[in-house]
Amino acid sequence: MFKINITPNIGDTDALRHINPNIIPVWFETGRTELYNIFNPTHELTYKKWNLLLVHMDFNFIKLLYFGYDVEIRTYLIKIGKSSITIQQEVWQNGSLRVTGKSIMLCYDYIKQENKFISENIRNQLKKHLITLEEIEENNKIEMKNNKNRKKYDFIE
Amino acid sequence: MFKINITPNIGDTDALRHINPNIIPVWFETGRTELYNIFNPTHELTYKKWNLLLVHMDFNFIKLLYFGYDVEIRTYLIKIGKSSITIQQEVWQNGSLRVTGKSIMLCYDYIKQENKFISENIRNQLKKHLITLEEIEENNKIEMKNNKNRKKYDFIE
Amino acid sequence: MFKINITPNIGDTDALRHINPNIIPVWFETGRTELYNIFNPTHELTYKKWNLLLVHMDFNFIKLLYFGYDVEIRTYLIKIGKSSITIQQEVWQNGSLRVTGKSIMLCYDYIKQENKFISENIRNQLKKHLITLEEIEENNKIEMKNNKNRKKYDFIE
Amino acid sequence: MFKINITPNIGDTDALRHINPNIIPVWFETGRTELYNIFNPTHELTYKKWNLLLVHMDFNFIKLLYFGYDVEIRTYLIKIGKSSITIQQEVWQNGSLRVTGKSIMLCYDYIKQENKFISENIRNQLKKHLITLEEIEENNKIEMKNNKNRKKYDFIE
Repeated sequence: MFKINITPNIGDTDALRHINPNIIPVWFETGRTELYNIFNPTHELTYKKWNLLLVHMDFNFIKLLYFGYDVEIRTYLIKIGKSSITIQQEVWQNGSLRVTGKSIMLCYDYIKQENKFISENIRNQLKKHLITLEEIEENNKIEMKNNKNRKKYDFIE
Repeated sequence: MFKINITPNIGDTDALRHINPNIIPVWFETGRTELYNIFNPTHELTYKKWNLLLVHMDFNFIKLLYFGYDVEIRTYLIKIGKSSITIQQEVWQNGSLRVTGKSIMLCYDYIKQENKFISENIRNQLKKHLITLEEIEENNKIEMKNNKNRKKYDFIE
Repeated sequence: MFKINITPNIGDTDALRHINPNIIPVWFETGRTELYNIFNPTHELTYKKWNLLLVHMDFNFIKLLYFGYDVEIRTYLIKIGKSSITIQQEVWQNGSLRVTGKSIMLCYDYIKQENKFISENIRNQLKKHLITLEEIEENNKIEMKNNKNRKKYDFIE
Repeated sequence: MFKINITPNIGDTDALRHINPNIIPVWFETGRTELYNIFNPTHELTYKKWNLLLVHMDFNFIKLLYFGYDVEIRTYLIKIGKSSITIQQEVWQNGSLRVTGKSIMLCYDYIKQENKFISENIRNQLKKHLITLEEIEENNKIEMKNNKNRKKYDFIE
C-alpha cells in the first residue's frame, strides 16, 4: 500500500461547503505516483517512452470531505493481468473512509497504439504490493472500529 | 438527451499529446447542467437550498481524445429511483464515441444530511427525458456505422 | 474583441460561495482560442508546430462572481510587438465588470527554444483586432452606466 | 519564508510537454496555506468566519517546468498594509527559479462585504515573516550562482 497526505485547498471545496468530487481523480493520480515510478523509472513522459494508459476509473462517495483537515490517499494494487493492472484507492479523513475508487491501467505502446505485456522485471516489483479487496476491507473494518470513539469533526456551523 | 459542445483547452491535454482523463468529470458536470436546472430552477447553490449529491461516478475510456476538434457531451437520464437518478454520459469527437460514464445522484437534504424523495413535479419533468441503455447503444451503433467512411482525423505526427 | 459565454460549474465555486479565482486563468485560456487559431490554423498542438508561449499573466478581482448566471469572457488584443502580443481580458456577469487581466504571449520556436518574429501574414490578421486600453475603458464606462439601473443579482442568502 | 514540495502530476503537463501555466495558481494557493493558518487558525472556511479575499495575482514565467522532478514553492510576505498583505511566490525546479508571482489579499468581512483592519495579534505573527523583494533577489542570485555547475536536466528527447 502507498500512502500520501494532501492538504485540501480552498479551490478544492465548492459552495456546498465540502470538497468537490472532481478533485478526487486528481488526488488519486497523485496517489498512483509510486506505481508510475515502477513502470517508468526515468519519468520520461513522452509518447515514445511512457507505457501506461488509463482505461477505466470509478468513484464511490461514502462520506463528505471537509476543508481544514488533511486527507490520506491510500493506493493498493489488487490485480496484475497480462497487460493491465487494477488499482484500488481510498480517501480517508479524520479516521473515516470517505471515498473508494478503482482504476484500470493498460501497459501500452503509444507509437503502435496497442497493448503490450507487462515485463517480468516490472511484474516482480509489482507482486510485492499485491493485496486482495477482502484483505483491504478486513483491515478497514478493524481500523474504523478502533476509530469509533475518536472525536467527531464532521460539522460546519 | 442533452447535448453540449466544448472546445478543448491546451490545459486539458497532457504530455502524452491527448486529452487528460481528469478533465472528463468536469465536462460531464457541465453536461448535467440541464438536469440540475430541473432540480434547482433558482440556481441557489447553498447547503440550505441545493438538493443534489453525487454518490457515484465511473468512466470508460474507449478511444483517445485530441486537441483541435470540439467534443460533444451527451447526457442521458437512464433511471429515476425514489430518491436517486442515474445518468449516462458520453464524449464524442469526430464522429466516434470516445468515453462513456455513469453517475448516480441523490436527492439530498444538506441540513438534515439525509436523502429525500424526488417530488412529483420534478419526477414528471424528468420522465420526459428517460431512455434505456439499450436504446442508447442501438442509436450509437447506427450512428457509428454511418460515420464509418468519415475522414479519419486521429493522427498526430 | 472576441466574446464567449461560459456557464459556471459547481466545481468552479468554493466554500465562500463565490467563483474561486483559480478558474479564471482557465476561462481566459478558452477566451484566447480565436487568437490561437490565427497563429495555429491547423490546431497542431505539438512542440514541433505550435508557436505560442505564455510568459506573463495577471488578474485583478474587482467584484465577486456567482454561480447561477453565465459569465461573458471578452478578449482584446492591445499590443503587437516584434515577437510578442499583449492581450487584455475581462469577465462580465449580470452587467458588471468583475475581473480584468493581461497576458503576454511570445511567438516561440519550441525546438530551438527561442523567440521568433511574428510573420507578416499573422500580423495582418492580428491588426484588425487591435484596440487600445483607453478605448476599452471608455466603452466599459458607458456600458456600466447604462447597466446601472439593472436589477441587482449579487446576493446570496 | 514558507517552503513546500510538490510532485507534478501527468495532468499538470500539456501537449507541449511542459507544465501547463494554469496549475501555478493552484500550487501558489497551496503555498499560502501557512499564511492562511495565521489569519484563520480554526480553518473554518465559511463566509461567516473566513477573513481573506484575493484581489490580485500575477505570474512571470521565466523558464519552462518539467514533469519528473519535484518543484519547490517558496512563499514570502513582502508587505503588511492596514487591511491587506502582499505575497511574493516562486517556483523552483532543479536548482533554478522558473516562475515568480505576486498576490494581494485583503482582510475581509464576507458578511458586511467590506475590508477590515488586520488585528494586532495577527500583525505581530506576520511581522516575523516579513522580507523585502531586494533581500529575496539577493539570496536568489547567490543560490543560482552556486547551482550553476549542477547537472542540467532541462531536456526532453
